Amino acid sequence: MRGLATSSLIQFIVFCLVVLPVALFSNGHPTIAISEKEATAIRMNSGKYPAFDTSLEMTREEVGLAMQQEIEVPPPGEAGGYEHEKHKQNYRDMQKAGMLFTLTGEEKYAAFVRDILDRYADLYPTLGPHPLSHKQKPGKLFHQTLNEEVWLVHAAQAYDCIYDWLSAEERKRFEENIFRKMVHLFAVEYEEELDRIHNHGIWAVAAVGLTGYVLGESDWVEKALLGSKKDGEGGFLKQLDLLFSPDGYYLEGPYYIRYALRPIFLLADAVERNEPDRKIFQHRDQILEKIYYAAAKTVFPDGIFPPINDASSTMNIADIGPLIATNITYHRYGGNDNLLAISRIQGRVMLNGAGLAIAKDLAEAPVKPLAWKSVELSDGFDGERGGLGILRMGQGSGQTMLLMKYGLHGKGHGHFDKLNFIFYDQKRQVIPDYGFARFINIETKFGGRYLPENDSYAKQTIAHNTVVVDEASQNAANRRAADKVWAERHFFNAEDDQVKAMSARANQHYDGVKLQRTMLMVQHEKLDHPVVIDLFRIESDVEHQYDFPLHFNGQLMTTNVTFGDFGNQQAPLGDSDGYQHIWYQANAKTDGGVQFTWLDGHRYYTFTTAGAKDSEVILGRIGANDPNFNLRSEPLLVVRRQAAGHLFASVLEPHGYFNEAKEISRNARGMIQSVAVIGHDETASIIEIKGKNDIRWQVMVNNGDATTAGKSVTFGGETYQWDGNFKVLF
Amino acid sequence: MRGLATSSLIQFIVFCLVVLPVALFSNGHPTIAISEKEATAIRMNSGKYPAFDTSLEMTREEVGLAMQQEIEVPPPGEAGGYEHEKHKQNYRDMQKAGMLFTLTGEEKYAAFVRDILDRYADLYPTLGPHPLSHKQKPGKLFHQTLNEEVWLVHAAQAYDCIYDWLSAEERKRFEENIFRKMVHLFAVEYEEELDRIHNHGIWAVAAVGLTGYVLGESDWVEKALLGSKKDGEGGFLKQLDLLFSPDGYYLEGPYYIRYALRPIFLLADAVERNEPDRKIFQHRDQILEKIYYAAAKTVFPDGIFPPINDASSTMNIADIGPLIATNITYHRYGGNDNLLAISRIQGRVMLNGAGLAIAKDLAEAPVKPLAWKSVELSDGFDGERGGLGILRMGQGSGQTMLLMKYGLHGKGHGHFDKLNFIFYDQKRQVIPDYGFARFINIETKFGGRYLPENDSYAKQTIAHNTVVVDEASQNAANRRAADKVWAERHFFNAEDDQVKAMSARANQHYDGVKLQRTMLMVQHEKLDHPVVIDLFRIESDVEHQYDFPLHFNGQLMTTNVTFGDFGNQQAPLGDSDGYQHIWYQANAKTDGGVQFTWLDGHRYYTFTTAGAKDSEVILGRIGANDPNFNLRSEPLLVVRRQAAGHLFASVLEPHGYFNEAKEISRNARGMIQSVAVIGHDETASIIEIKGKNDIRWQVMVNNGDATTAGKSVTFGGETYQWDGNFKVLF
Repeated sequence: MRGLATSSLIQFIVFCLVVLPVALFSNGHPTIAISEKEATAIRMNSGKYPAFDTSLEMTREEVGLAMQQEIEVPPPGEAGGYEHEKHKQNYRDMQKAGMLFTLTGEEKYAAFVRDILDRYADLYPTLGPHPLSHKQKPGKLFHQTLNEEVWLVHAAQAYDCIYDWLSAEERKRFEENIFRKMVHLFAVEYEEELDRIHNHGIWAVAAVGLTGYVLGESDWVEKALLGSKKDGEGGFLKQLDLLFSPDGYYLEGPYYIRYALRPIFLLADAVERNEPDRKIFQHRDQILEKIYYAAAKTVFPDGIFPPINDASSTMNIADIGPLIATNITYHRYGGNDNLLAISRIQGRVMLNGAGLAIAKDLAEAPVKPLAWKSVELSDGFDGERGGLGILRMGQGSGQTMLLMKYGLHGKGHGHFDKLNFIFYDQKRQVIPDYGFARFINIETKFGGRYLPENDSYAKQTIAHNTVVVDEASQNAANRRAADKVWAERHFFNAEDDQVKAMSARANQHYDGVKLQRTMLMVQHEKLDHPVVIDLFRIESDVEHQYDFPLHFNGQLMTTNVTFGDFGNQQAPLGDSDGYQHIWYQANAKTDGGVQFTWLDGHRYYTFTTAGAKDSEVILGRIGANDPNFNLRSEPLLVVRRQAAGHLFASVLEPHGYFNEAKEISRNARGMIQSVAVIGHDETASIIEIKGKNDIRWQVMVNNGDATTAGKSVTFGGETYQWDGNFKVLF
Repeated sequence: MRGLATSSLIQFIVFCLVVLPVALFSNGHPTIAISEKEATAIRMNSGKYPAFDTSLEMTREEVGLAMQQEIEVPPPGEAGGYEHEKHKQNYRDMQKAGMLFTLTGEEKYAAFVRDILDRYADLYPTLGPHPLSHKQKPGKLFHQTLNEEVWLVHAAQAYDCIYDWLSAEERKRFEENIFRKMVHLFAVEYEEELDRIHNHGIWAVAAVGLTGYVLGESDWVEKALLGSKKDGEGGFLKQLDLLFSPDGYYLEGPYYIRYALRPIFLLADAVERNEPDRKIFQHRDQILEKIYYAAAKTVFPDGIFPPINDASSTMNIADIGPLIATNITYHRYGGNDNLLAISRIQGRVMLNGAGLAIAKDLAEAPVKPLAWKSVELSDGFDGERGGLGILRMGQGSGQTMLLMKYGLHGKGHGHFDKLNFIFYDQKRQVIPDYGFARFINIETKFGGRYLPENDSYAKQTIAHNTVVVDEASQNAANRRAADKVWAERHFFNAEDDQVKAMSARANQHYDGVKLQRTMLMVQHEKLDHPVVIDLFRIESDVEHQYDFPLHFNGQLMTTNVTFGDFGNQQAPLGDSDGYQHIWYQANAKTDGGVQFTWLDGHRYYTFTTAGAKDSEVILGRIGANDPNFNLRSEPLLVVRRQAAGHLFASVLEPHGYFNEAKEISRNARGMIQSVAVIGHDETASIIEIKGKNDIRWQVMVNNGDATTAGKSVTFGGETYQWDGNFKVLF
């Protein structure tokens, strides 16, 4: 009985501390990103979990600094300019101050949010459409509604946190002058945005949905989740159904989904908090979990997202969107070592229950590096429209990564670059993708928007590492045409530690020309590092010009061809399709194999490709026809051939070590010496790779439908036999 | 009495532990880099000083790895090739193993040294002059004697350490087959090298002198110290007298002296150990201390040596030469916080008494960052041949540094670049010097030697940040002519925290043209960072073309001139003197001031220069006429004017912040808006700088002899008055 009494006492205490506050506020505020219950739990765990305490302290410092400044709510300004940045800073400050008020109860934070909202309540009703919009739907504070929706997503959270603290009069004023006006703009004036299956649409539904929960407007929530007609033909759920493949991959690539992770996970979490019966985290076979992992698993070993389509080359997993998504995924679906590793890279957690949960495990679990394995992600809502392949070898930050893109075009931000690859080694993109042509948020550079060279160069096929037919981009660089087709998955097998392979086709990107690329990653005891074996096979009945480009960084060290350079006069490599932006620096003619070694950082890289009659080898440099110096000056190598059907068979070998400061150079010459094509047809391709130390490898690749059965092919009287899609005979 | 007895006992123990071993070995071995007495002290302090213990452990590991390999003493090979590197590795391994034997008494280390020497004793007598020498005096193991002297400096230390352990027979064999043969080569066949006043001569005297001490050949020591005639007209002491200025500065610059610090300090230390009566560390008013500090004080805040003359852009204070010099300087002259900071950057100490001394203080002194102050170093043996000026503002790794070169030419490694400057900010060279054109030790790149483009580009005036007259390099790029003249110190004043200034002249570098450059570094409350004010004044009776080049890294953001680009056709900027290697990318004509902003890393930089009639502004890029792609592709800005007398008056302003990953840009436009020349003549220059926030500064600079007296000048009816060499009126 005493035991029971004690137990009852404990139950009572728990009730007082945990349940009571919930009961008091369960239908109240805050309700979308944090609850009073979570705030209580956080207070009870103060000082226990360093990741949480540090995050709280950082936020206190940031808001503290903001509160020292005079509040400023300027008139609307140009994109990337001072006023634009000030409005962004204001919403960040409000959101943080709101959370701090909920966590600490310190009224100065609530007053700070109120005072800012007060200024917006003065300004907002006076504004018409922003005069400086540029092709986008204009907001009022910002040149495009997108930024204004982001403003509302943050302001709604801040308002939620101080809702109960405000007077009814203040609430009325803020809602009438700001929140209802904004929702009217997004859900009535631009109603169609709620039905748009596009990443911008996600911000629209999040802004409207979150505000709906805070203001108790279930109609707004319905429209946000089910579309303007509330019939499920638009809205968040439809976006979740159509924007992502069954694997969770987003057709525009990681850079764009990274930006959408924030509204997706904030809205989903608010739905779960307020309407758990909707089972949002179960929707479409737990698609939210897949969306998160599909984005997170693409990162380079240092946490940077690979630049696919229009993308920055430095955006990383520590950005606020992935941070929120990591925390909520961890909380709603459960955690693991890789999520903890990512959270460590992020260095910060959310200031709510999800953040507390991950901070607790960060404090208690052993530290392990991020250790993603190879993965293939299907593309298209039905998962039948190609995909993205990533092969990985090695551990930690020394991991080597090979990525090939063979999915959908990616709409307005898509690049004409199917079968493009990126090779990452030595903590850098060694065979890089140019990314976008944009100096984001730098107002002196075209207002921070996409530069004209984004269209004329960065999107074009030659800007990537994939074959260009007849100096024309895929689908004639026509976005509408490109959006109608896609590349196809062929096979992907990363089970073996020594040889991993991925293969894909692009048959709808050039009339009468079929492309197949099979890439293998091989590690071998005779080599310092994993090498890439690349078989780019082209089928066509008529002769074309095939340009095989390889973008690289660093300095040419040695090559087996003799360049006649154009040292006294330099002209563009072509007239259009991106070629007009490449200086034609030097060329060489050869019938034999090509070897080309360059130095990048502390390693050498040698590209070796099989010979073919009348090959031209071209060295180029980006920057021609660039009157505003918008492009980065970077080199590329192009192997040019005239042929009908053709196989580009190549090896990319990282080797040796160079340290200028220590004046050490080792193995400046690689191990691989030659690649020869034994034969290739619709059945299979066979190549032979030779090198020092008696390296003599036969590589056999299935060109037919993917198979696990035995394969056989005869070239030059010799029959080659193996099982399945590929085989490397060492 | 008891106290005295205890005291006597302690004295006895100390005698046994410390004095006794010294007495036993005082005239024995080892004798040049470590003594048995030091070894004993080190053993007694084992486990006490982490820096020493770590260094010992690293050496044990390195030698342990080397001992796992089979000993290999290959025939001579090409510079930078496998055999070359193997011989280098062998001498490093021997030196370390020798020291380990002395410290630990473990015979495996002695046996390892003996076994390597044994192989050399077989090989060396069979060798004639190296067949692959290239303009240098051939060694036998190496293509040039220099490397062979380095070999001997190390092998002599190793032999010294195992001398007593070897049998008399082994000693006889090694001495006859290796050491005496080598010394014969260096001191008899190439006798003149001992008298050569050149950094290579330092290695020769060190090799001969150190070996002389080990073998007890005082004649060799005399020749090493006093020259081949032993009359003081050559040798080490003469080198110390003539190669360095009274401030210790070496005319070839830090990169070359960095390499010579090792033999200088090893030989000096051996002299002090064996012949203290020579008072080598007192020689020439303690010139050894000054040599060390003159090199060490030039480093950028991250410890990298500025690339002056032929130099790598990454060589740093952690290199073995500076490490030895730091340790021995600390030990012989006493320590301070900056030497400890440098030792921390080095991460390793010598394995002798000097290393123990610095390791002890590293363990006991508080950690402080490297904090060099501004300094001017005179050049020329008499200190009357110009110098090097370095202005520094800010703390730690965030320090801003401005360097101007106005000394001697620097002999064979000299560049034609008097009044050149380097600006270092944000942990990088923002206005860089190209350094050498060389891929050091990469055998596939011209054997790792200086490339032809080192002469045709890197040494030329246009490759630097100093005015080029009539598209010709200084002294017509004639090394002999350049070595006969020098720039001149004008004034240097770094006392004030807000304004620091340095000024120099170059009157002997262009016929009939006198150059004066005055650079000020200013920090001001209205600016984020220190700015550079640059007055480059030219006197001439006849009109010339003046090119003012500014090398930079990064991307053009905005400019106030309109470039007509040559986007479709690019030709070299000129025919010779380095201009043939620059692509003429774009130009603009203007009569007004020029503003040019670029982005480099996380900051913007704006260069603002006063207008002049018919100015041409040129954008160039390095890389024309470079058939082997030996040059790095880097941009430069050139302001070109036709004038007789002229003043280039400019401001360089770092401003704002950009973070692509965080998509933040602040203050992409700078504060400084214009520079105007009020007037300039032989008395003074007056300029006015205007900017936002009511910035309006008058800058007054004395063009006459340096003075502390009052100055007065009248331009346009207005009289300007100030005291001393310069004044900035804010």
